[in-house]
Amino acid sequence: MAYNLLKGKKGVISGALDEHSIAWKVAERCAEEGAQIVLTNAPVAMRFGKINELAEKINAQVIPADATEVGDLEKLFQGSVDALGGKIDFVLHSIGMSLNMRKGRTYTELNYEHMLKTFDISAISFHKMMQTLWNMDAMNEHGSIVALTYIAAQRVFPDYSEMADAKALLESFARSFGYHFGMRNKVRVNTVSQSPAWTTAGSGVKGFKEFFQYADRMSPLGNASAEACADYCLTLFSDLTRSVTMQNLYHDGGFSSMGMNPAVLGLDYE
Amino acid sequence: MAYNLLKGKKGVISGALDEHSIAWKVAERCAEEGAQIVLTNAPVAMRFGKINELAEKINAQVIPADATEVGDLEKLFQGSVDALGGKIDFVLHSIGMSLNMRKGRTYTELNYEHMLKTFDISAISFHKMMQTLWNMDAMNEHGSIVALTYIAAQRVFPDYSEMADAKALLESFARSFGYHFGMRNKVRVNTVSQSPAWTTAGSGVKGFKEFFQYADRMSPLGNASAEACADYCLTLFSDLTRSVTMQNLYHDGGFSSMGMNPAVLGLDYE
Amino acid sequence: MAYNLLKGKKGVISGALDEHSIAWKVAERCAEEGAQIVLTNAPVAMRFGKINELAEKINAQVIPADATEVGDLEKLFQGSVDALGGKIDFVLHSIGMSLNMRKGRTYTELNYEHMLKTFDISAISFHKMMQTLWNMDAMNEHGSIVALTYIAAQRVFPDYSEMADAKALLESFARSFGYHFGMRNKVRVNTVSQSPAWTTAGSGVKGFKEFFQYADRMSPLGNASAEACADYCLTLFSDLTRSVTMQNLYHDGGFSSMGMNPAVLGLDYE
Amino acid sequence: MAYNLLKGKKGVISGALDEHSIAWKVAERCAEEGAQIVLTNAPVAMRFGKINELAEKINAQVIPADATEVGDLEKLFQGSVDALGGKIDFVLHSIGMSLNMRKGRTYTELNYEHMLKTFDISAISFHKMMQTLWNMDAMNEHGSIVALTYIAAQRVFPDYSEMADAKALLESFARSFGYHFGMRNKVRVNTVSQSPAWTTAGSGVKGFKEFFQYADRMSPLGNASAEACADYCLTLFSDLTRSVTMQNLYHDGGFSSMGMNPAVLGLDYE
Repeated sequence: MAYNLLKGKKGVISGALDEHSIAWKVAERCAEEGAQIVLTNAPVAMRFGKINELAEKINAQVIPADATEVGDLEKLFQGSVDALGGKIDFVLHSIGMSLNMRKGRTYTELNYEHMLKTFDISAISFHKMMQTLWNMDAMNEHGSIVALTYIAAQRVFPDYSEMADAKALLESFARSFGYHFGMRNKVRVNTVSQSPAWTTAGSGVKGFKEFFQYADRMSPLGNASAEACADYCLTLFSDLTRSVTMQNLYHDGGFSSMGMNPAVLGLDYE
Repeated sequence: MAYNLLKGKKGVISGALDEHSIAWKVAERCAEEGAQIVLTNAPVAMRFGKINELAEKINAQVIPADATEVGDLEKLFQGSVDALGGKIDFVLHSIGMSLNMRKGRTYTELNYEHMLKTFDISAISFHKMMQTLWNMDAMNEHGSIVALTYIAAQRVFPDYSEMADAKALLESFARSFGYHFGMRNKVRVNTVSQSPAWTTAGSGVKGFKEFFQYADRMSPLGNASAEACADYCLTLFSDLTRSVTMQNLYHDGGFSSMGMNPAVLGLDYE
Repeated sequence: MAYNLLKGKKGVISGALDEHSIAWKVAERCAEEGAQIVLTNAPVAMRFGKINELAEKINAQVIPADATEVGDLEKLFQGSVDALGGKIDFVLHSIGMSLNMRKGRTYTELNYEHMLKTFDISAISFHKMMQTLWNMDAMNEHGSIVALTYIAAQRVFPDYSEMADAKALLESFARSFGYHFGMRNKVRVNTVSQSPAWTTAGSGVKGFKEFFQYADRMSPLGNASAEACADYCLTLFSDLTRSVTMQNLYHDGGFSSMGMNPAVLGLDYE
Repeated sequence: MAYNLLKGKKGVISGALDEHSIAWKVAERCAEEGAQIVLTNAPVAMRFGKINELAEKINAQVIPADATEVGDLEKLFQGSVDALGGKIDFVLHSIGMSLNMRKGRTYTELNYEHMLKTFDISAISFHKMMQTLWNMDAMNEHGSIVALTYIAAQRVFPDYSEMADAKALLESFARSFGYHFGMRNKVRVNTVSQSPAWTTAGSGVKGFKEFFQYADRMSPLGNASAEACADYCLTLFSDLTRSVTMQNLYHDGGFSSMGMNPAVLGLDYE
């Protein structure tokens, strides 16, 4: 169902790899709600993803950019302003990758070159996006910037490894830059802390299935779906949340507020 | 601007005293968004408030209820189901009053009979509402229950006195009952932690003006207005936030994430 | 091993029922560390407890007091000042009881008279203690007040029922009164959020064994023992923690910072 | 006053630049409490600091190490085990430096090469220390690792700039590695979030004086001193806190739990 919640708004969405990506669903829903979208992804991700399929479907332009390269981000946002015909109302950061996990290195034997690269891709890219937008003065007043994150930033999930630290860094950037963007432009910056989702990215993590099921049982509403996450992002991009900023918002079916759910121990709810 | 965000939904809203009340704005916006509303207030509050004016404007029925009386709440919710023609989709709890503050007793000389009454009115009434709704099975699946709260539940604002403790209790009830309502009915329960607002209730607090200004300067977006709070509540009542539950959500212009804003010290943003 | 950490200090300790009680261990350790102690308990609890055995062992006076009665608390603290020969350096609040749990009423069918009594015993008694100490000006400068609490104040453990809400209230009182005691007397007020322990009180809770084991597996260091809790309280009563106040301090083997421990799923640590 | 709290324990302390450093006070107090200490600092910091003066005073060996170099850390900890005659009981990480701040770059014009270096020095060095200790199996059972941090990791203090993000990262490392060290060795890992202190490092920050005063007035106990911080670290290194791990512990005179202190507005406490 569509509400015209984003009618006339212009947004840039990163990280839509394929139809399982949360960013993909966000882009679809934003378009349904009346927004004009520019899609972006790393050149390497575009090769094996299906972003062009999505672009066609929602009539969006695609501008490839390596989010760790400020030069690329400048082109991305200048290109977006040009394509959209004005300043940007909302941005989604949905970028994350752990080199150490990919290389099979556990948390107690991390390679520090990999770690720096992980942080650059998964967290610093968010600062780079915001600093680029800031310097170009490319955000509209009352705009909204959202990054996706995970509760491992607050609590330990051993298999999530260095991505936990990357997410803690990402959330800190949101607060820190949120102050500046709020003071100058009334732009708000928030992170959405999402349930584990069956994305192409997520399902690659070791022990993901058990972990997904555990989280699902712990959460009174079950794990939040990618579709629900897209709906939630709509509210944050809309004009209905203009005073919410510098928050980490759990979109997790209640997981974050549970200490123990008997369902985890296999007991039925009585 | 209206989006039909609550089209066909049925809600019960407490605490609309006059046009300065947050609950008043929430009711207005809910009606604009297509919801059918039942208004409620304590019989005593109705005498000096203007709730009937609002009721007429939004075509709502008014059902008086003392929220500390389970019998009254049963009549309220049964009457609401009857008036609305079905189960309830959303409920707003916006009730608070401190007897000790009213009597001018400071935090180190509290009267404990007053304290119990304060908690009964300001916090336990929320549990009573939920328990009544639960026992009547009066909430629709995926319904949404929201209570208004304040950051004094987490951090000390000396003039807020025992209301801080009442709000801590209120927020705990939201989590605790949120678990049960989530497991059985997919109903979510959240609290919205709102900036100080120039309501009739708020402005009676000692030192309120200085405090309001302090919070306004501390918050990068300034204090969130009652109108903005109403907009935010809409998102929580809508189907776009179906996986958000058991959360305390700051709607405060960023206040909660600030350690120090130079503006508090009278410095301009540079 | 003893360090003379509390040499010359005077303390009042509530809640030592029998040798399984955390308060019992705290009293023993305080005495070993050179403190003079007054023990207190509710008259009813003294009848079936063994507090006199402890009193003899550590050469402490026992002053019965119903902590919900301000008159009793006045006698307790006046009697303590007399017995100890001066103002009080530290106080332990270790009092909790849920009437609804005792009566077998679940969280969705609470009796509200019981709830008020539960809060009065388990939380408001802490405010009453502090307000009494405040009005008598009975705390020494840099004194330390500690109450025992549980993480159910932040996250839901369904079987903990209304005690979760009582603990949330208790922790709020610590912050709120801690401000006043800090400003006037440099006295600090903190809560210690302890692992589930095999106390006489704890083991009566429904499903306690499964819950104890779950927490034990979740915590990297295992559940914190009552003995360890006593040691931790010593540090908070000592002069080594004079700048720590208004904090809720987890003494839980790391439980509070865990999202998932594979040990909970029966997996060995690798 | 000394308690022999650390009698027979062996510790490694980084970051003692001069007598204003918190690490300097920690080292002094640890020695007073009976511990044997190895001091370390970056070769460059040793040139203009007075670490040898301290070393002589407390009879400690000094082993220079660049904490960003794993090779240096291996030599440091191997040298420490040799010098101390056995495995290590406690470690203090007190290392931080922001290149961007030093270069006068504000938060919205950060240089990303500098940022990576800042994170490497101020946060990743902590992971490197722990991973080195882990791989060498150099920590005694029940050992204790502490890093100093600041509340800017949770709330925005604009002048603290990228150090806020570095501290958020540091605290995440403490949790993440704390899990592993707890599971394998019962070693605990915590961060101490300290009030602003008049250290050589701190006083170089822009607007530090106003900020120090603001924090002092906000905190019911005033800013915690470096001496008090040293005392607090003792408790965390001692056997009295063996079940406390993966925590961020505020040692801040109550600052973190304050919303507003009338003293900030120049009002006396009444």
